[in-house]
This record gives sequence, C-alpha cells and structure tokens, in this order.
Amino acid sequence: MNQAVSSPLYAAIDLGSNSFHMLVVRHIDGSVQTMAKIKRKVRLAAGLDENNALSQEAMQRGWDCLSLFAERLQDIPKQNIRIVGTATLRTATNVDVFLRKANQILGYDIEVISGEEEAATIYKGVAHTSGGMGRRLVVDIGGASTELIIGEGFNAKALTSLKMGCVTWLERHFKDRQLTATNFDNAIAAAKDTLAPILEQYTQIGWDVCVGASGTVQALQEIMLAQGMDEVITHAKLKRLQKQAMLADHLEELEIEGLTLERALVFPSGLSILIAIFELLNIDSMTLAGGALREGLVYEMVNGLRQNDIRARTICSVQARYQIDVAYAEQVSNLAGKLLKQCGGDNWIAEPQGAVLLQTAAKLHEIGLTINFKKGGEHSAYLLNHLDLPGYTRAQKHFLAEAARRYREQLSSLPEQHALSGTSGKRVLRLLRLAVLLTHRRSCELEPAVTLRAEQDTLTLSIDKQWLESNPLTSAELEIEANRQTDIGWPLSIIEC
Amino acid sequence: MNQAVSSPLYAAIDLGSNSFHMLVVRHIDGSVQTMAKIKRKVRLAAGLDENNALSQEAMQRGWDCLSLFAERLQDIPKQNIRIVGTATLRTATNVDVFLRKANQILGYDIEVISGEEEAATIYKGVAHTSGGMGRRLVVDIGGASTELIIGEGFNAKALTSLKMGCVTWLERHFKDRQLTATNFDNAIAAAKDTLAPILEQYTQIGWDVCVGASGTVQALQEIMLAQGMDEVITHAKLKRLQKQAMLADHLEELEIEGLTLERALVFPSGLSILIAIFELLNIDSMTLAGGALREGLVYEMVNGLRQNDIRARTICSVQARYQIDVAYAEQVSNLAGKLLKQCGGDNWIAEPQGAVLLQTAAKLHEIGLTINFKKGGEHSAYLLNHLDLPGYTRAQKHFLAEAARRYREQLSSLPEQHALSGTSGKRVLRLLRLAVLLTHRRSCELEPAVTLRAEQDTLTLSIDKQWLESNPLTSAELEIEANRQTDIGWPLSIIEC
Repeated sequence: MNQAVSSPLYAAIDLGSNSFHMLVVRHIDGSVQTMAKIKRKVRLAAGLDENNALSQEAMQRGWDCLSLFAERLQDIPKQNIRIVGTATLRTATNVDVFLRKANQILGYDIEVISGEEEAATIYKGVAHTSGGMGRRLVVDIGGASTELIIGEGFNAKALTSLKMGCVTWLERHFKDRQLTATNFDNAIAAAKDTLAPILEQYTQIGWDVCVGASGTVQALQEIMLAQGMDEVITHAKLKRLQKQAMLADHLEELEIEGLTLERALVFPSGLSILIAIFELLNIDSMTLAGGALREGLVYEMVNGLRQNDIRARTICSVQARYQIDVAYAEQVSNLAGKLLKQCGGDNWIAEPQGAVLLQTAAKLHEIGLTINFKKGGEHSAYLLNHLDLPGYTRAQKHFLAEAARRYREQLSSLPEQHALSGTSGKRVLRLLRLAVLLTHRRSCELEPAVTLRAEQDTLTLSIDKQWLESNPLTSAELEIEANRQTDIGWPLSIIEC
Repeated sequence: MNQAVSSPLYAAIDLGSNSFHMLVVRHIDGSVQTMAKIKRKVRLAAGLDENNALSQEAMQRGWDCLSLFAERLQDIPKQNIRIVGTATLRTATNVDVFLRKANQILGYDIEVISGEEEAATIYKGVAHTSGGMGRRLVVDIGGASTELIIGEGFNAKALTSLKMGCVTWLERHFKDRQLTATNFDNAIAAAKDTLAPILEQYTQIGWDVCVGASGTVQALQEIMLAQGMDEVITHAKLKRLQKQAMLADHLEELEIEGLTLERALVFPSGLSILIAIFELLNIDSMTLAGGALREGLVYEMVNGLRQNDIRARTICSVQARYQIDVAYAEQVSNLAGKLLKQCGGDNWIAEPQGAVLLQTAAKLHEIGLTINFKKGGEHSAYLLNHLDLPGYTRAQKHFLAEAARRYREQLSSLPEQHALSGTSGKRVLRLLRLAVLLTHRRSCELEPAVTLRAEQDTLTLSIDKQWLESNPLTSAELEIEANRQTDIGWPLSIIEC
C-alpha cells in the first residue's frame, strides 16, 4: 500500500480537417486511462479556397485552439507527446505558414502524416480497442479523407486513404444546404466513384467483420441508441436515416432524434459516404470501434500493450485494477465452460458470443466487491456499465453488467439487451449462477462432481450425495437456487446421486 | 499488470448471546475487504434456564449454525481463523457439553473470552474503523453483556464488561412483552444500578467523543435515517423513540419507521440500557462505530495496519486501490488548505470537521477517473457513497460524495447533508473547485500565485496577470468558474495583478 501512483501522462493531438482533438491519458496496470479530452471545432477544411490555400481566418482558429492545448502540453514529458496533422494540412498549399506559427505556439513540431500512415495508425487504434476474431475491415470517415483498412490482429493487410470526407462532401454536394434526393444521389454516386479503384483488391482480400470509427459512425450509434435500436449498423438502417433526414428540406431544419447539433452539419454528407461504402463493398453490418487515430497514436507510444487477444488483455487489466480474486475467477470460468459443454455447447447457446460473454462474466462478476460486499452485484453492474472495456461493444458491456448484477441471491429476468438473443442471454445467466454457487468453497479440490443436462430450457443437475452432506451451506443454497430458477419459469431440478 | 491477486482470507466468528456471526475478509492494499457475512439468530441466551444451564434446543440451534459456518472455514488457513464465545458461554454451567460438540463440528477450538478481553477486542475493532480525535468512550450493548471502554488512539484506558444485555433485559424487564412506562422505568433503573460501580472511574477519566457499536445502536441509525434525522444520537432522540415505542401496548405490535422485524424484539430492552447509559454518564451525543468485536478479531490477525491516524490510512489505501494520482492529490489538498487559511481558517469555516472534509475531498475527488473520464464526478460520488471508508461516518461519506460529484464543470448547490452546516458545506465546495481549477497544470511549479479574500460569502481571487496570459486555458476556465459561482449566488470575482 501507500505507493505513490503517479504514472506518466501521454498526449495525442490530432489536427483534423473538421476538429482539433487533444487526448491526455495515463498508463496504469496495462490499461490506458483517459485524463482529459479537449475538442475544438476549428473547421480547417472549410477554410481552403479554390486554390487549396488556407484562409487567414481558418489558420487563426487553428492557432487559437493550439494555444489552449499548449498549456496542457507543458506538463507532459516530451517523448510522450505526438501531434499529427491530416488531410487538410496535406492539401493546403500554404501549410508552411500555418505550421511555422503552430510549432512555435505548441513548442513541439507537428508531423503532417501521409494518408497511408494515417490509415495504419487508425488501424492500430482500432486493433487495441475493439474485440472480435478474424479479419476486419475498418472504415474511418474524416473531415477531408476517408481511410479503409483490412487487417487481422495487429497487422494491416491493406491501407487506403481517399480524398473524400464529410466536410469536403458537404461543400461539394450539399453546397446549397438542401437535403434533396438529388443531392444525396450525387453525393453517394461521387463517393462510389472515389471508392471504385479499391473495390477489386478489397473484395479479393475479404473480411469477416466490419468496424467503423470517427464522428459519423459515432453519431449513428447515438441516434440508434436514442431511437431504441440495437447497436449494429446495417444498410437498411442507413437508408431509413436518409429518409428521416430528407423530411427536412434544408440542413438547418434537420431534426433526427439522438442527433446532436454539433454533429448535424456534416451528418448528411457523412451518411452519404457511408451508404456508398455499404453498397459498393456489399457490407452486411458494422459496429463502432473503441478508438481510432488518437488512440493509435497513444498505443504507439505506450509500451507493453501488444497482446493479441484484446479481450484477454482487458480482463487481465480489469482484474488487476479492481483486485479481483483471479484464481477464483478462473475456477468459476472453468466450471461455467464445463457446464456449457455438458448442456450441448453451441447447440444449446447458438451465438458464438454467448460462450465469450459467459467466460467474461465469470471472470469479472466479482468486480463490485472492490466497492462493497453489500450489494456487490449492483456495484459490479455499475462498474461494468461505465468502465471502458476495450474489445467489448456497448451492448456487450450492458449484458455483462446485467448478468453480474444477478450473479447471486435474488434472481430476476434479464432486461432487454442486444448482445444475445433472449434465450441465449437467459442460458448464460443460469450457467453463471450455477458456476458461482458450486464454487462457493473457492478451491478446485473442494468442487463437487456435477453433471448438468439440458432439454431446451429444462435443466437437471446431478450432484454427488456425499458432497452435499458434507457441504450443508451449499446444499441449502442449491435448493433455494433450484426454486428461484424454477419460480421465474426456468425449470431446474437437483438430483443427488 | 496481470499479477494474480489472490490475497489470503481471514475469518472471525463470534458466538454471541443473541446471534452467531461469521465475517470473512481479504487483506488488500492496506485495507480489509469483506468477502462474506453470515449471521444466524441462534438466541443462545434465551436458552439459559434459572440455573444457567443451556437447554438442549438452544445448543442444537448453535450446533446447526456452526455446521454451516464450518463449510466456509475449511477454505481458510488455520492461522487466519479466530472463533470466540462471549457472555452466554461465559455463564452457562454446561458450557463444556456445548463446546465439545461445537469444536468437533468446526474442526477448530472456540475460545470463550473474558469480559475484559471482549472489551479490549471491541475497542480495537472501533479504533480501526472509526475516525475522530481525542479520548473516546465506546459502548457496545450485546445480548447478555454490555462493554464500556475509554481509550485514545489504539490504547484502551478503562475496560468494563457488565452482565446486562438486550436479551437478558428483555427476559427480565419485558417478560410480559408489554411496552409500558413501568417496564421501561424498571429496565432503565436496573441498568443504572448495574452501571453505578463504574460511574466515578469513568467520569474521572473522561472522554471527548462517544461511539456506539452493536445492534441496538445500528438499529437506531437505521431508524433515524428512515425518519430523515441526522446521524447523531442524542438523549432527546432516544426519549422520543421510547415514546414512539410506547404507542404500541405490546411488543408484537411495535411499529417504528425504519425498525426492521429482525431487530424489533430486543429493541425496547436495548433502548432502555442506552438511555440509562446516556443519563448516568451524562452523554451529549453518540455516533455509530464502523466495527466492533469481529472487526477487532480481524484486525488482531491482519498485520501492518497499526497506523494511528485511521483517516490517513483510509485515504492511503483508497488512493492506492483506485490508482489516484497521489502527487496531484497532495497538490490540490495543499492549495485548498492555503486558500482556507487565506479566507480566515476556522473563522470562515467554523466546524473543525470542515477542514478535515476539505482535505479528504481534495485527496479523493479524482477517484471516479478509475471508472471513466466521462462523468468522472458522478463516478467519484458513486464510489465515495458506497465504499467502506473507516474513520468517516455515513453523513461524512455522503458529503464527500456530493462535493466530489461537483468538483469540476457544471456547478449546482449541494443537496441536504448532515456532515456540516449548509454555509460550511458550500464554502468547502467552493474552495475545492478553486483548488482543482488552479492546479490543472498538475505541477507545483506551474501553480499561480494567488490570494483569496473572503467577506462572508463574497470571494475575491487575486491572481498573477502574467501567469494568466501564459495559461489561456485556465484563464478561460477561471472566468467561467467565476460566473458559475456568482450565478448560483456565491459571488466570486477575479482580480488580475
């Protein structure tokens, strides 16, 4: 105890075409903790004239913003700072004028990175913050460029940066600020033309999952959440949102539940680009990435975080940070896995995410004990809902929270959740509760021999009679549990043998 | 990261006259974390006959309970277990019969401790879990004995165990289960007779604060909380509760808002004893202790926890467990202390607890960042409300939570709280916010030279002009802060000099 926890700070600054962002983090116990986020909508791209020169006003907005950032930067070790400029600074003919004064204000040099470098860094940010197996397609729609990357694990296989972004598409295809079918059609068609050259290569490499980063996709998530949809982005949902947008004639009148004012201006143009990508690359579904460019910059600086299974890393880090009894967590997760197998494995819980979430819940369910034994399940739910858990989507975090809330004592049905089907969610929870209950002795040697049989939703647990007799506390709790599950319509019977 | 956190478990079992309790804890980062609490109302004392022999039924209830405990004990290292019996087992003539079988069931020997040993252990439990300075009187009303201790820090100066408890007083003075004035008068008078022998010694030694442990005092806290009173127990409140109790003729009809069924039976008898203690020893006020006998047993086993200032220990432990930036916390707390002094110290914040809570809030306000940067203040409030914070009362935890909720960004008035006067609470929050804002650079060398002047609730902050110019971010935030405080009626102006 008592050690001074003053981990060094890291800062990543991204001079984007629409906004400048600053991210300040600490590196603790294998995880990256956000200490500050500052964002200013500088709208640099809007300041490019027909000759691609930045206007004096746009540069001044940029400099003003950087002098705010500079104050925070002074407290951070030089080697822990990275500042990059992207598409607009790549394009601006008078970039030298901007950079000279900007470097002076910051006290550090800005690197204007190439599109390919940007794509590679975005991929790192995504790989370090998003779970899932297999090959992934990453899409990041910026203000003046769009990056598309295919990769697996931490290795990118294809990197592309296209000169198309939500600010440039706004100025080019919604210049009259009308939300007409014509404008949308033109914007989508132009985006497809821009994408065409990469179609063959990308289709050939192929991918298993698709992940979206940046403001447009984040805005979509917020809208879907506000409108009570699940978190998976599909072409159908995008077209529905396009229709909603077209109900307003004029951009200024745009009103979509869940869309914030701040994101509204570039929403239709970003949406058009995303629709084009879905249609041309024939994408089924997309989820939101946990991070992108800034996170990539941070993870490039922070050492020792290169573990391939991002979810395993998250679990390790959270277990360490919240003093979870790791040996016990392992015991519960092993037993839960065994019980799932006895019930028929993926014949019984169809979605592959089911087994992953059962394992994760088993490994993290006791997290709330760090706050208090009393209402431990409630505290677990609070933490799992609010912690950053790189590798898990928002819906998955919510499911983990609701399962952990119910890991012991009173049992109630799960609320609506979008991580698993209702049937699978219920089954995961039942197995979790049984695994927790049967390991109350917290020692593998003291675990009973059990067999769990499932016929649809009817469970039968066979358990050693002698063990039950020498473990009266667990025996009593098991009886109560059988009643609790049966009472809410999940039949469970115990057979002594 | 990744280290296996499997700290050893400790168990303390207390075979009390009313209930048997088992407490299982882990020792982590200098703090003791509860892993399980099991309680069974065995009512051993009620099984004593006129010759002080335990009935067969009472013994059986005890043995049944112990076989439940035994199951959990097997998982805990032998040297980490303590099992003690108290008053009823001290008294029972056939205690050998009970112990022989009990030891066999548990697999460990039960120590029947003397009244003085019990008092000493209770004092340790209180000293390790309750804050406050000076000499303290500790009162613990058990089922068949009442302990009174005077001590300072970890050293007890007077230890007394009296043969009077809420179960024995129930059987002796409320045998007819009538809640009449006569029964109360007799119970109180008899308690005073029992207390009389220690009056002179205790009055002579004297005390600064009075702390109550055990079920009766806990029941009082729950009632006071449910009825919206503050947490300080006074004679007036006790008499009010006696009156409320007497509205029911019969014990079975007793109904007091906040009194649970489980505590109801022995509440009137316990209340009578407490009233006698207040009246005879002329006690002003009493607060609830954070722990007693079981906690004393645990703290005797767990090493390395003997730090005199219990609050400092709590702060250190919480800072370590939740990865708080300690150097920064120290900086904020130093500046907050300096600002308080500039405003006039205890001339400006009258209650001595004000300075303590300001320091504590400064040292813990960032705790919520461990959960997420987003809504950090909300997370801080959640943690401070729900964590065990040995040395802080419930009302103080609540105040710390509400102050931390508001440490940055939007400002709103504090809700009703019972730790400080409304004026002092507000002043603590204002200083906390200013100290946080002025240390945004997180480095002592980069702190501005400031002078804060207070005239009642009007604050004027003088700050170095050059510093403001070279710190435009803080300068902008300071201006916003002045508006925020002023807007909710707490005038704050900034003078550059």
